[in-house]
Amino acid sequence: MAAGRPSILVINPNSNQAVTDGMAKALQPLLLSSGPEIICRTLEEGPFGIESQCDIESVTLPLRDLVRDDNLTAAFVIACYSDPGLQVCREVTDKPVFGIQECGVLTALTRGDRVGVIAIKDASIRRHMRALRQMGVIDRLAGERAVNLTVAESAQGEGTFARLCAVGRDLKDLDGADVIVLGCAGMAAHRIALERALGIPVIDPVQAAVTMAIGAVLVG
Amino acid sequence: MAAGRPSILVINPNSNQAVTDGMAKALQPLLLSSGPEIICRTLEEGPFGIESQCDIESVTLPLRDLVRDDNLTAAFVIACYSDPGLQVCREVTDKPVFGIQECGVLTALTRGDRVGVIAIKDASIRRHMRALRQMGVIDRLAGERAVNLTVAESAQGEGTFARLCAVGRDLKDLDGADVIVLGCAGMAAHRIALERALGIPVIDPVQAAVTMAIGAVLVG
Amino acid sequence: MAAGRPSILVINPNSNQAVTDGMAKALQPLLLSSGPEIICRTLEEGPFGIESQCDIESVTLPLRDLVRDDNLTAAFVIACYSDPGLQVCREVTDKPVFGIQECGVLTALTRGDRVGVIAIKDASIRRHMRALRQMGVIDRLAGERAVNLTVAESAQGEGTFARLCAVGRDLKDLDGADVIVLGCAGMAAHRIALERALGIPVIDPVQAAVTMAIGAVLVG
Amino acid sequence: MAAGRPSILVINPNSNQAVTDGMAKALQPLLLSSGPEIICRTLEEGPFGIESQCDIESVTLPLRDLVRDDNLTAAFVIACYSDPGLQVCREVTDKPVFGIQECGVLTALTRGDRVGVIAIKDASIRRHMRALRQMGVIDRLAGERAVNLTVAESAQGEGTFARLCAVGRDLKDLDGADVIVLGCAGMAAHRIALERALGIPVIDPVQAAVTMAIGAVLVG
Amino acid sequence: MAAGRPSILVINPNSNQAVTDGMAKALQPLLLSSGPEIICRTLEEGPFGIESQCDIESVTLPLRDLVRDDNLTAAFVIACYSDPGLQVCREVTDKPVFGIQECGVLTALTRGDRVGVIAIKDASIRRHMRALRQMGVIDRLAGERAVNLTVAESAQGEGTFARLCAVGRDLKDLDGADVIVLGCAGMAAHRIALERALGIPVIDPVQAAVTMAIGAVLVG
Amino acid sequence: MAAGRPSILVINPNSNQAVTDGMAKALQPLLLSSGPEIICRTLEEGPFGIESQCDIESVTLPLRDLVRDDNLTAAFVIACYSDPGLQVCREVTDKPVFGIQECGVLTALTRGDRVGVIAIKDASIRRHMRALRQMGVIDRLAGERAVNLTVAESAQGEGTFARLCAVGRDLKDLDGADVIVLGCAGMAAHRIALERALGIPVIDPVQAAVTMAIGAVLVG
Repeated sequence: MAAGRPSILVINPNSNQAVTDGMAKALQPLLLSSGPEIICRTLEEGPFGIESQCDIESVTLPLRDLVRDDNLTAAFVIACYSDPGLQVCREVTDKPVFGIQECGVLTALTRGDRVGVIAIKDASIRRHMRALRQMGVIDRLAGERAVNLTVAESAQGEGTFARLCAVGRDLKDLDGADVIVLGCAGMAAHRIALERALGIPVIDPVQAAVTMAIGAVLVG
Repeated sequence: MAAGRPSILVINPNSNQAVTDGMAKALQPLLLSSGPEIICRTLEEGPFGIESQCDIESVTLPLRDLVRDDNLTAAFVIACYSDPGLQVCREVTDKPVFGIQECGVLTALTRGDRVGVIAIKDASIRRHMRALRQMGVIDRLAGERAVNLTVAESAQGEGTFARLCAVGRDLKDLDGADVIVLGCAGMAAHRIALERALGIPVIDPVQAAVTMAIGAVLVG
Repeated sequence: MAAGRPSILVINPNSNQAVTDGMAKALQPLLLSSGPEIICRTLEEGPFGIESQCDIESVTLPLRDLVRDDNLTAAFVIACYSDPGLQVCREVTDKPVFGIQECGVLTALTRGDRVGVIAIKDASIRRHMRALRQMGVIDRLAGERAVNLTVAESAQGEGTFARLCAVGRDLKDLDGADVIVLGCAGMAAHRIALERALGIPVIDPVQAAVTMAIGAVLVG
Repeated sequence: MAAGRPSILVINPNSNQAVTDGMAKALQPLLLSSGPEIICRTLEEGPFGIESQCDIESVTLPLRDLVRDDNLTAAFVIACYSDPGLQVCREVTDKPVFGIQECGVLTALTRGDRVGVIAIKDASIRRHMRALRQMGVIDRLAGERAVNLTVAESAQGEGTFARLCAVGRDLKDLDGADVIVLGCAGMAAHRIALERALGIPVIDPVQAAVTMAIGAVLVG
Repeated sequence: MAAGRPSILVINPNSNQAVTDGMAKALQPLLLSSGPEIICRTLEEGPFGIESQCDIESVTLPLRDLVRDDNLTAAFVIACYSDPGLQVCREVTDKPVFGIQECGVLTALTRGDRVGVIAIKDASIRRHMRALRQMGVIDRLAGERAVNLTVAESAQGEGTFARLCAVGRDLKDLDGADVIVLGCAGMAAHRIALERALGIPVIDPVQAAVTMAIGAVLVG
Repeated sequence: MAAGRPSILVINPNSNQAVTDGMAKALQPLLLSSGPEIICRTLEEGPFGIESQCDIESVTLPLRDLVRDDNLTAAFVIACYSDPGLQVCREVTDKPVFGIQECGVLTALTRGDRVGVIAIKDASIRRHMRALRQMGVIDRLAGERAVNLTVAESAQGEGTFARLCAVGRDLKDLDGADVIVLGCAGMAAHRIALERALGIPVIDPVQAAVTMAIGAVLVG
């Protein structure tokens, strides 16, 4: 880290480096030469993907350790839509810690009235709804629907995009959403195309969280 | 505006240039040479201060006109805690429009669990609570309390700061707030000192809104 | 105005005299020789129809002026379902000011458990839901659906009625509404027929607001 | 009942004729020669006062019978703040049935932002809060406080009024209420004086309910 | 009652002894030789079935009398899903009184995230939703749907079970429920089979209430 | 475990055997010779006390392992008021898993209208309120207050009891609670005395959870 230039650590809690690379790519627009450095790091101890509560719990203490032992970073972003370890990381540092679900949804509230969320799997929806109730914003949820794609399918760009469009249209037309949140750090590559296809704002939660982190770091 | 460099227009809806200058000063940390240009503008048609619903309504159409007729700006911030004209401005542009109450409160939700708001006058509290219900986040409000200072008093830095501290402590100790939002664009100069005095995060809503605007502009 | 006989001013904020005439007709049952005088007035400065937030903002100050400068009226009703200028009018008079959305929905809460609203256009629904959240009654909303008729179509009595019935049945059968609010001042002529067709109460919000105004005026 | 002139039956569910007489007096402003007849009736089977859940349950079936067997009345008002028998009366008639708690609170929502309720006894508050949650309007409650007067004390006009003022001031100053509902049919005589003393609207729920009944009857 | 062995009185408020017998059978697993005695009693004064608000009101005072006059019972369960007389029974005894709707729903909240309720008739749904709002747990409701069976049909085990499965699947698949509450004391016989068929927990509210009563009695 | 006799495993997630012993003592009334066996076990891997989010996260995986690897137990109770690991334990077993905060609060909802919670430390209150929002029952919270005792002080029975009484009285008199939940597994010894002193029900959450577990086990 350059002396005097603060940095933001964006932690991908799964150990899939391709996901981290995708994040880094999605965050390129937020890289400013005069702004905070943005460092994307893969949590080595993490599972290859975070799909279950077990996966979530398996990363909370490694995340806590990473945050606690880091004296150089000015703000942290936990870049998994389940916001694993968010509370415990906040407990061990005086620096701000942002979760991408929290920031993605809160940012969406500034861009539309009722939020639609695209989840990876049906099984995640229940967990996300618990989080929205905990956040106290459940009245703003239009609905959450899953693409239910396997990793193999989601690797095929076009198939994934078609599913995102179909689910996004259901959220818009059937549930009344006027802003969409991508409920997974790995969907970022499709954000702009999906926004054009649906005609309503689409929020990448990693971008949303890093934005808030930049602000927090800059204003001190 | 430099060709190709996007700009954010921060509109102070009152005609008090000193308030606009204060904003510009508070926003200096967010000015990045490689980031969006941040332009603070005083709304000439605005009243000297916005304290009543009449004041609010008097600026909605001027704000709408300003936003509608501006093809150069990439994102707008309406820098009055009553979020005047927010909905109408959103209707006349495809660019994102941010209100500082919305952004201040939503940002606070990432920094604490229950939000305390410091208002200028008791009379504003009712209006703000309507806004929090409309936003669907009222369950996160710890309380809102007013400093009830006249302009003359608030000009005296120390007196104002002492009042901010006293009200902030009541919000923290009596109402259970663990994050504070400054409920007025004009309190920004005291943010850092107040944060230190209270020991909990203090959010300047103009900084919060400009942060979100920067993110929206950069990610396109 | 007869000396000593108080009057209620019902203001149609659009400049379409036919709408004002329709209101006056719908209010005939509430005209009592010994009760308050009910005066329906067209806001000359208003747009021909109020369909957008721009339309709404364009009438708030004219409504404010009208209310502020009127020393003879005992209570005011703003007869547009978007309740334009409601807060600012309340600020400039000690007399009660009623909005028809507020009164229509609150009255519906006395006639059924879950409220269905028939909107003119899909675009209005989002605005109305913001209002219901602001009112703090969103848990009583069964749903809101739009007839999406053009003015030309709505002029054809039968076509309009058929659409009202179809939308009303969806609100009742699909959304579980057991009371309907007409989400527009112009649908009043169909109220009784629609109530018979659906078999559940149908509330005309102008009648609801004028009723509350009559009560407020009579009890002083 | 004069032929063709519809009537509203206001039922005092307790057997205290003095309370019925007080209601009738409070309703005099709503008696219009050309409007519906307003008949106040004491429920003979009722207890002398309704202070407990036992008292409430003891009147539900007598109220039901009275409503069911009455073919002449156009609308019913159950004039006890606990709204006893409201649901069962609605089940046995096609005519509208209004409860004074429901109508008092809903009417208050049109006159202020946050409602304060003055109860007779502390023991009633819990019951009223259940009703406000059931109505789905609990977010609008500023607070409820009791005068805790005995019947003997409340008979002394001045003592009662002083207690009403003290409790009303606490609701306004400590709880943030900007409109008051009298949580008992027997406080009506003090409404106007209390409104003047507090400087915010004070709603008599019997007047509120009869107003809504008049509207429902007149519009058919 | 054996000396020293406390008893729980489970009151079936309808006079259909077959329903009481069904309850007793469903409660057999909760009968422990060393635990409280569980006595199921038919309310003789009750109607043959409780389907309307009239039916509900007709049993509140008989239930009250039964509870008030019983000095031997340690805890009471009112075994009708409308929780008739719950508040009044609580008023006349210091012993705990449990309602099966309350206990069934609260128990379901420990077994799933969003609750689906199977009602007997469409007409009951509105009443149940009022109760869920009053309980303050409406945000946890996935949906409520009715089997709409006649008594004759429900007597045919297979036909009833097929309807329960169909409605249960709609609650699970369309409404997102992950736990089901049987909204009637008479469906208990199908609980285990339905749980197997749906693959999510199914709660019999009588068992849930008696469980809570056992706990309350044992801990004193 | 006797063949055929099901067992409930009550896990104290801290490693303080004295706390486990206290639980076992408080659960003695629920031990029935013919009912499920109740086994209290200390989590060896746990910290000596669970006071922070770090403490919570440190036990989630050990709890998960314990639950996952146990094929003999019929139901699990996690006996720490922060409900650590509740979701992950539910994921790895088909058996019901109960958290004491969930069960304590839900049981309290059957014994009073508004719940007061006595916390050990001020720092826990925020965490508990997040949980109540997540549960969707925050509208039933009267308030939460902490005794703020050190372990040394809480060891002195009388001093602890006096603090519990003082805090309980504030919850009752200032916050309007009519039922109290002990917000810590270690306060159980004072439950009965506190209930007598306050005159309102006091719920020990471990007893509440084990009660629900007994019911779940017995009905299968």
